[in-house]
Amino acid sequence: DGGSYDAVHDASSPAAGDCCAQQSSAQHNWEMNYQEAAIYLQEGENNDKFFTHPKNAKALAAYLFAHNHLFYLMELSTALLLLLLSLCEAPAVPMLRLGIYVHATLELFALIVVVFELSMKMRWLGFHTFIRHKRTMVKTCVLFVQFIEAIVVLVRQTSHVRITRALRCIFLVDCRYCGAVRRNLRQIFQSLPPFIDILLLLLFFMVIFAILGFYLFSPNHSDPYFSTLENSLVNLFVLLTTSNFPDVMMPSYARNPWSCVFFIVYLSIELYFIMNLLLAVVFDTFNDIEKRKFKSLLLHKRAAIQHAYRLLITKQRPTGVSFKHFEGLLRFYKPRMCARERYLTFKALNQSNTPLVSLKDFYNFYEVVGLKWKAKRNREHWFDDLPRTAFLIFKGINILVKSRVFQYIMYTVVAVNGIWILVETFMLQGGNFFSRNVPWSYIVFLTIYGVELLLKTTGLGPVEYLSSGWNLFDFAVTLFAFLGLLALAFNMEPFYFIVVLRPLQLLRLFKLKKRYRNVLDTMFELFPRMASLGLTLLIFYYCFAIVGMEFFAGVVYPNCCNTSTVADSYRWVNHTIGNKTVVEEGYYYLNNFDNILNSFVTLFELTVVNDWYIIMEGVTSQTTHWSRLYFMIFYIVTMVVMTIIVAFILEAFVFRMNYTRKNQDSEEDNGIMLEKEISKEEVIGIIELYKRSSAATETSQLQKIVLQMDKYGQMSTLFLGRRSRTKSDLSMKMYEEEIQEWYEEHARKEETQTPSQESAPASNNFLKPSSLRQRSQTVI
Amino acid sequence: DGGSYDAVHDASSPAAGDCCAQQSSAQHNWEMNYQEAAIYLQEGENNDKFFTHPKNAKALAAYLFAHNHLFYLMELSTALLLLLLSLCEAPAVPMLRLGIYVHATLELFALIVVVFELSMKMRWLGFHTFIRHKRTMVKTCVLFVQFIEAIVVLVRQTSHVRITRALRCIFLVDCRYCGAVRRNLRQIFQSLPPFIDILLLLLFFMVIFAILGFYLFSPNHSDPYFSTLENSLVNLFVLLTTSNFPDVMMPSYARNPWSCVFFIVYLSIELYFIMNLLLAVVFDTFNDIEKRKFKSLLLHKRAAIQHAYRLLITKQRPTGVSFKHFEGLLRFYKPRMCARERYLTFKALNQSNTPLVSLKDFYNFYEVVGLKWKAKRNREHWFDDLPRTAFLIFKGINILVKSRVFQYIMYTVVAVNGIWILVETFMLQGGNFFSRNVPWSYIVFLTIYGVELLLKTTGLGPVEYLSSGWNLFDFAVTLFAFLGLLALAFNMEPFYFIVVLRPLQLLRLFKLKKRYRNVLDTMFELFPRMASLGLTLLIFYYCFAIVGMEFFAGVVYPNCCNTSTVADSYRWVNHTIGNKTVVEEGYYYLNNFDNILNSFVTLFELTVVNDWYIIMEGVTSQTTHWSRLYFMIFYIVTMVVMTIIVAFILEAFVFRMNYTRKNQDSEEDNGIMLEKEISKEEVIGIIELYKRSSAATETSQLQKIVLQMDKYGQMSTLFLGRRSRTKSDLSMKMYEEEIQEWYEEHARKEETQTPSQESAPASNNFLKPSSLRQRSQTVI
Repeated sequence: DGGSYDAVHDASSPAAGDCCAQQSSAQHNWEMNYQEAAIYLQEGENNDKFFTHPKNAKALAAYLFAHNHLFYLMELSTALLLLLLSLCEAPAVPMLRLGIYVHATLELFALIVVVFELSMKMRWLGFHTFIRHKRTMVKTCVLFVQFIEAIVVLVRQTSHVRITRALRCIFLVDCRYCGAVRRNLRQIFQSLPPFIDILLLLLFFMVIFAILGFYLFSPNHSDPYFSTLENSLVNLFVLLTTSNFPDVMMPSYARNPWSCVFFIVYLSIELYFIMNLLLAVVFDTFNDIEKRKFKSLLLHKRAAIQHAYRLLITKQRPTGVSFKHFEGLLRFYKPRMCARERYLTFKALNQSNTPLVSLKDFYNFYEVVGLKWKAKRNREHWFDDLPRTAFLIFKGINILVKSRVFQYIMYTVVAVNGIWILVETFMLQGGNFFSRNVPWSYIVFLTIYGVELLLKTTGLGPVEYLSSGWNLFDFAVTLFAFLGLLALAFNMEPFYFIVVLRPLQLLRLFKLKKRYRNVLDTMFELFPRMASLGLTLLIFYYCFAIVGMEFFAGVVYPNCCNTSTVADSYRWVNHTIGNKTVVEEGYYYLNNFDNILNSFVTLFELTVVNDWYIIMEGVTSQTTHWSRLYFMIFYIVTMVVMTIIVAFILEAFVFRMNYTRKNQDSEEDNGIMLEKEISKEEVIGIIELYKRSSAATETSQLQKIVLQMDKYGQMSTLFLGRRSRTKSDLSMKMYEEEIQEWYEEHARKEETQTPSQESAPASNNFLKPSSLRQRSQTVI
Repeated sequence: DGGSYDAVHDASSPAAGDCCAQQSSAQHNWEMNYQEAAIYLQEGENNDKFFTHPKNAKALAAYLFAHNHLFYLMELSTALLLLLLSLCEAPAVPMLRLGIYVHATLELFALIVVVFELSMKMRWLGFHTFIRHKRTMVKTCVLFVQFIEAIVVLVRQTSHVRITRALRCIFLVDCRYCGAVRRNLRQIFQSLPPFIDILLLLLFFMVIFAILGFYLFSPNHSDPYFSTLENSLVNLFVLLTTSNFPDVMMPSYARNPWSCVFFIVYLSIELYFIMNLLLAVVFDTFNDIEKRKFKSLLLHKRAAIQHAYRLLITKQRPTGVSFKHFEGLLRFYKPRMCARERYLTFKALNQSNTPLVSLKDFYNFYEVVGLKWKAKRNREHWFDDLPRTAFLIFKGINILVKSRVFQYIMYTVVAVNGIWILVETFMLQGGNFFSRNVPWSYIVFLTIYGVELLLKTTGLGPVEYLSSGWNLFDFAVTLFAFLGLLALAFNMEPFYFIVVLRPLQLLRLFKLKKRYRNVLDTMFELFPRMASLGLTLLIFYYCFAIVGMEFFAGVVYPNCCNTSTVADSYRWVNHTIGNKTVVEEGYYYLNNFDNILNSFVTLFELTVVNDWYIIMEGVTSQTTHWSRLYFMIFYIVTMVVMTIIVAFILEAFVFRMNYTRKNQDSEEDNGIMLEKEISKEEVIGIIELYKRSSAATETSQLQKIVLQMDKYGQMSTLFLGRRSRTKSDLSMKMYEEEIQEWYEEHARKEETQTPSQESAPASNNFLKPSSLRQRSQTVI
């Protein structure tokens, strides 16, 4: 595989031996090494497999082109454009309808962009790796099909049945920014085998009960639910979702009260036992997968760090990475980091007092590199430098807002406000509430909140005030309430909805109880993951919406389904009783697949499950009874996704609660923190280093620190690094004991593997025998 | 507290010092000690607290009277009688209606029996303990109220509003046999605090959204769901159960499509997030409680064993319990055990080779005493003793039925049978299927199953065949199918339902896959616990049924609720279209509280939740809108119980799966097994011992063993003890490491407690300084 890129840097990389080359060439080669090390570290972070690692200079160029936010954004926007096209394609949302010529051209354009993206990827991966990469191959095939179909549409000037549009999601899933969605999908597919096993059990019992039910109830001619075996099966499937209960029982119950036993037994077995079993099995698999995923990610990161480390050590100093090389790495890995931060990261990594970072210390790279560094202020409050009188006033405010009494008074105010709103709303009797004057209570409470906000901002200083999430929330809610007041006062109708947000103030009360704080904290921690799960669900929705639109668009309309048992729900009648017009509406004709937005709402209703059979029966009565398959499959798919979501929430909370139980003493932590002191000499040393490489901005920045030290007459400054705690940190602590085992096991496996598999990517590209030996010393 | 009983046995119990009393008196005192030790062990087993331990001879007599199956059965039947009375009291089940005079007299009779039971309990506990025992006190109060009410009913000859009848469940819950229900209730109450916290969060969001919804949708006059704040609240509560979705959304959705956002956000927060949070919190608490419960039970048992041990050791031999004393204990603890089993239990406990069982060995008492002992047969098959030809035939059958091929052939037959039944049923077009002749397929398949059964029984021997649960199942299903055939052949109409059970054969297919076997095994293990949870649910049902009957009996009838929005569901109209009578039935009037059986069905429908608001609105329209409280509270209560049931199933399965993952090597175990060898001399030794105490039956039994040994010319016999694995065994293995810590912690705690709390029940009754010293040596 190796090309010129390999050859060049392998030959002159100092780790690889000959250091007697020219200065400028060595410098160039070092740059190459930094870049490759940075790429390894990125691959480790993003969980990209190493076999996609660029193998030569050409591949590197393509890799760099395809790995930056501009390219990612292009990828994302093309995918979104393709997805959004279904808003304008027939059946389109009325306001967004576009001509066939227009949307087909747009589609072709987007597809060409995707072709371009894929060709860049091919350049970077090489042809062999490209066809070995499954996801990319699937994407290519889908692209091909889409391309042909788009051209067909353009040529025929009319749309045919294009269910393949459902596959457009693949372009979104393949986006760099949608890594979380990919992980979710993988997790869903991994949970499938046990899920399907239990599902079969479920369906099996359903069949048995369908046969039983058919034999027992079909002699009763007033019972439409069990008249044929198919009806019996469909109705028991619906009963599984409880959606037709108790109606399905009623005809037989009316004839013989004991027939309720059949339904009670069926529901107890299917709904209360097997469905929960399903959750248990998925939950268990989920836990297991989470742990294995964490393990493989951890080991992958470790391997990435080893690769990077090997590129940064020199032959002269094989026991560690010097700051010069580390700085070079960071320039590629995190270009926006300033010189001070780079040095602090280096210092934070360096546990020993030598000038080199050993491999053992280097393993903490990912934990340390995310820290945000700030000089620790010597002042306790923002007003410490103010004159005496002002200081005392602010100090008083500070003590006041930090006191328990103040807090509890505010809680009381919020509670009173809440009761007030409730009573006030209860007194209203409907109608338009906004035409009246601004109620005085609103002004009073808003004034109190305003005063509180003012006191807190002055007492704590704006920076400290806004650094707490809760305070931010208070601030936002108060601001909204104020905007609502303005809207009300100046009669700006479109903003009335803001007034309605007043009750949100009540959420502040939840700070009172520790359990709620925990729940809300966990909620915020989970939010990104929840969002990605939601997005995953939306992707499934999209596929089903496209299929639904292709088959069921326009089949449901007012008064449509008169032959079905659910005709009432689709009724729309205009009676005239006396001189009054009474509209009798069933409204269900609104749950249709007439455009993609309607389809999404309909699918959400199907997800909620209640009364979904009305939608199913309506559509079925207008099409064929095979339509039911669509709805049943959708139910099963959402059941899978929903079970996984439930399992995820369960796992996350139980994990979190176990964690807090394990670390009850250190509960009041807000993130990961690290302190490092830098002396003046050190700074001057780095300045020298940067001067040599003539980096002007860095030098001037560092000199500022020296000046500040001089001003306060300090010999050193204390810096504080801080970042928020991630799930990975929690897992690290939870599996503490096991992690060491994993490392050892991994190291053992690698040692046995290395001699036999000389062609492993790492050793293939960069390892010479000398460094290989050294590696087996430093690992473990 | 101590009375004569203490005095007598304390003075002469050999452990307590003076062993120089008369032989017969000492014997008598030993008997007392055995009995008390047995009582301690029973208390440990049943988790009875030691402060209810009988303290003197009078209490002991009462204790013995109140602790046997006759008394328990009386307790249970009285409680059941009281509960079943509500079948006959107005509003009664029509067929079971009794005159007021009759059922009030029956009630009084049952209550008098309860008074008698309570007086026995008082005698045993003593007055002070009696009033300190909460459950008993509550029972007494309820009894008092019930008594007065029953008398009032008898005097007035008419029933008044007797909601207190709901409290009758207490008599059932207090039964000895309902210990599992009590544990469930305790667990439910322990899970309540975190549950209520999250419930408040849920209700809080509901109130916020109710206010929002009221402001947003009440201007729309065609939207009945949000017309007032109360409607808004009620409908959002119902929406939480999804029962009125999407109807509740439709009017506003028809007016403005974006209003669906309100409902989607509401459902996402409440249904998909907080409801799952509820499950997570309950699951977590549940796990925690399960572990703590296991711990306290384990320590309680340990303490019980310590108490018993102290009563069995003598001053001369303070390091262990001799067989003589152990045998005495077992005579009281398990009167039905035969002499051989007693000795085997003793041998199984005795890990050292001394004739005494030390405390450390004695701690395994509960694990060992449950073993069922059997002489290990020397014959491999039941036909080993038969003549050569017969042996070869049976051996052949044995090999055949044990072969994989035979098994897979049977699976194929079952599968074909299943498909056959399915197709056959699909071909039928309703009507009465039983009037026809017996289908030949039925006979063919039944013959195959019959042959299989015959082969297996002869090949394995009836005992081995029936010892497997799966074979038992096969046997039962085949038997039922045969009975069905008979019913069909001889036209016995009432037994036709048996024919319908044919598809159950298909369940045999689940043996094929390991996951199903695991699931089904776990299911059977869980069954007792599930049943007790079901009973707990029934008890809640009973309370609500009584309250529902008192308030809502007779309020719902055909065509009743014409003023409500759900009038259609209660309609019952007889149209005559042309010359045909069409009955239009809503059937919901059948979901009433007219008698206790109807109430139970109605409550089950409320539990399933779908369309429960139709029942609620029907009743509400006929009574006051406060009735909704009843239904909402019922929903919340069932939500609690159901969440606990789900948490229980989750916990049990996840625990089980973790267990199998931990013990993958020893997966094929069926219960706990232990082997012990007894030599002839030992048996003769025991016979001597029994001869001295002149126990004729035991002696003859043991002599039989000696004779058998002589017959086969053996010097010893191998016995195999076996019992099924319980949850406690699994927990023991799972918490292995922690258990040692608990013991140590407990021992430490006890040591620090003993000197200060001289009046602890154990030391109070039986400990003299000498044995106390000895104890602190043996513990740990």
